[in-house]
Amino acid sequence: MSDNHSQYPNSDIPLLYADTARSADMLYFGAVDVPDPFIAFLFQGKKYAVLNKLEFARVRRDGKFDVVWPLESFHERWRQLHPDKRPQTADVVELIATDLGIEGFLVPFDFPTGLALEISEKGIDVGVAEGMLFPERAFKSDGEAECIREGNSASAAGFRIVETILRAAVIDGDRLLYQGQVLTSERLREEIEIVCLRRGAHALNTIVAGGDQGCDPHCRGSGPLRPHELIIVDIFPRIARTGFHGDMTRTYLKGKASEAQTNLVDAVFQTQQSVLRKHAPGINGRELYQYVVDTFNQRGYRTETIEGISTGFFHGLGHGLGLEVHEPPRVSALDADLKIGHVVTVEPGLYYPGLGGCRIEDVVRITQDGYELLSEHPYDWLIA
Amino acid sequence: MSDNHSQYPNSDIPLLYADTARSADMLYFGAVDVPDPFIAFLFQGKKYAVLNKLEFARVRRDGKFDVVWPLESFHERWRQLHPDKRPQTADVVELIATDLGIEGFLVPFDFPTGLALEISEKGIDVGVAEGMLFPERAFKSDGEAECIREGNSASAAGFRIVETILRAAVIDGDRLLYQGQVLTSERLREEIEIVCLRRGAHALNTIVAGGDQGCDPHCRGSGPLRPHELIIVDIFPRIARTGFHGDMTRTYLKGKASEAQTNLVDAVFQTQQSVLRKHAPGINGRELYQYVVDTFNQRGYRTETIEGISTGFFHGLGHGLGLEVHEPPRVSALDADLKIGHVVTVEPGLYYPGLGGCRIEDVVRITQDGYELLSEHPYDWLIA
Repeated sequence: MSDNHSQYPNSDIPLLYADTARSADMLYFGAVDVPDPFIAFLFQGKKYAVLNKLEFARVRRDGKFDVVWPLESFHERWRQLHPDKRPQTADVVELIATDLGIEGFLVPFDFPTGLALEISEKGIDVGVAEGMLFPERAFKSDGEAECIREGNSASAAGFRIVETILRAAVIDGDRLLYQGQVLTSERLREEIEIVCLRRGAHALNTIVAGGDQGCDPHCRGSGPLRPHELIIVDIFPRIARTGFHGDMTRTYLKGKASEAQTNLVDAVFQTQQSVLRKHAPGINGRELYQYVVDTFNQRGYRTETIEGISTGFFHGLGHGLGLEVHEPPRVSALDADLKIGHVVTVEPGLYYPGLGGCRIEDVVRITQDGYELLSEHPYDWLIA
Repeated sequence: MSDNHSQYPNSDIPLLYADTARSADMLYFGAVDVPDPFIAFLFQGKKYAVLNKLEFARVRRDGKFDVVWPLESFHERWRQLHPDKRPQTADVVELIATDLGIEGFLVPFDFPTGLALEISEKGIDVGVAEGMLFPERAFKSDGEAECIREGNSASAAGFRIVETILRAAVIDGDRLLYQGQVLTSERLREEIEIVCLRRGAHALNTIVAGGDQGCDPHCRGSGPLRPHELIIVDIFPRIARTGFHGDMTRTYLKGKASEAQTNLVDAVFQTQQSVLRKHAPGINGRELYQYVVDTFNQRGYRTETIEGISTGFFHGLGHGLGLEVHEPPRVSALDADLKIGHVVTVEPGLYYPGLGGCRIEDVVRITQDGYELLSEHPYDWLIA
């Protein structure tokens, strides 16, 4: 966003109104799950939260807030001032601003418009943060990197069950039979989600997409999986205890691969490994992206739109990973350079309807010397 | 919200910018999963969406939009007009508004403030909807009621596994042993989540809270479950295919119940059943709530705050249920009356640290004649 989007540049007191399931900022700020939206802000170095009695004791005990105020006490004060009106969230913000002498707040881009309007109508400035409200979220500590590793170890457990099932599956014409039943994307996804659950992680929206379904990178996959077809498996589980995600992709084929399939997988694998090794502080994301495009082109894998269908490598190279699956920095569109502490996915892919899709994804943290891998799982793809 | 919050009352073209995981409005509007935020709006009775090439084909095929435009075509147009600037979301909204001669949009309360500000800086009016952007979301069709039933049948499957495990568990002093291991809230929650998964539902944040943990209604529960203690189990799974939730609560006790525990459960059960039968069109939610408070009081169960701890019945009686776990109408604070098609939970509870907590929750749809139950599971609570 450009400069003129911050209407009140003098407001530098971060204000949030969100639940922790929807807002990674709020989860980052308070480090405690709260299912319904609540007020929180940072003032003179202290973290404040205002919680109703359902949440008050638990959040005060488990959260990282310095001060937790009971919502009901503000409601009582409001009712004494305005016996005829029911207190709204903006009224509570107004009481707080008056108490602390605050003239304006800084809110994240996704702060609720309705509340921002109500607060500003009370004469309190509301400025919108440029980029992330807490820019430090993009720089992962050792502890946070460990949480992301934990997420990726759930992903890896998912790949192991996929490999076990594909190995046990029997080819029956154009179908795969597993435990006497036709093996589907849904069944494989269910088994992945269960092994993730056993590791304390929720793997929503896992992708298990075979054949041409795999050529649509956001298609989750459905119906019977076929032998001799590429199957993309993309698992991005969230560890319930910490809120941090893993995000890894492997591509498989059960049966016999054609030469074209083998070449496709080899191109993606070699390119993924070589671009991965280029990750380092100071490297520009757009350059990494262009390197992948060029490498694919040199191997004859062109990116083009054919009859309205995108083919080749037509998504980003990677994205920041943490409390959100997709968070800054976006590698391909990066204006700035990779910095120490950035955690990003590295996920080139190639997609050609008729031939199939292949994507391989790992996660790195940028270090002083280059990068460290936060994801570990073999790349064996061919299952006889 | 009062009238003055709608700054531009003439803007009646609903505009959304959201992903479907976070925004129930967006999922309701397009009826298709999209993991990243996108632009959608309703104009002259037609639903429009603007999607990038990763989503375009799938959303056009699977969604309920009348018109799906490729995001890239707007980006190209913008770059031709402003070769030096990268197009932002607000720029795309501006192109659309110009194309269609739209002077203003109506956005939901939770529309991103940053985007609202950018749009209004372009001279396009942005008004905030009072209440829900799509008020019809609160009135459930037969098909939607069926989706909620499906969610509740996943909840019921969760209760069955809980009962199976508690029945099989062995009392060993102040612990419960199951399959040779100490039975914990975490283990029971995991088994519940797995049976829900097997039914295509995600049961995030399921509550399994025993003893005094159950007295904190939003405590998810952790550690060993004890014999002879009340255990609250609250399961609100979301069916992945439809996005609709179930939401049911049962309370259990493994071992021997004291007279006080038996009386507490009886009070909650009798009250829940009698208030449930009072649900009908035209009934005021605040009256239902007061009936529960009065009934509990008559039985000697007082609601009061003792040394800062809330005891008795201190949460709402129920809430709307649908694409969100908590959505309008909120029964206890209802200014208006229950209407035909409303789907609400009915969940009185009593909580006394030292004695324990009990909550029983079902789901009803308001019908012309009264209500129909959308949740079914027995109320047996004592497991020897």
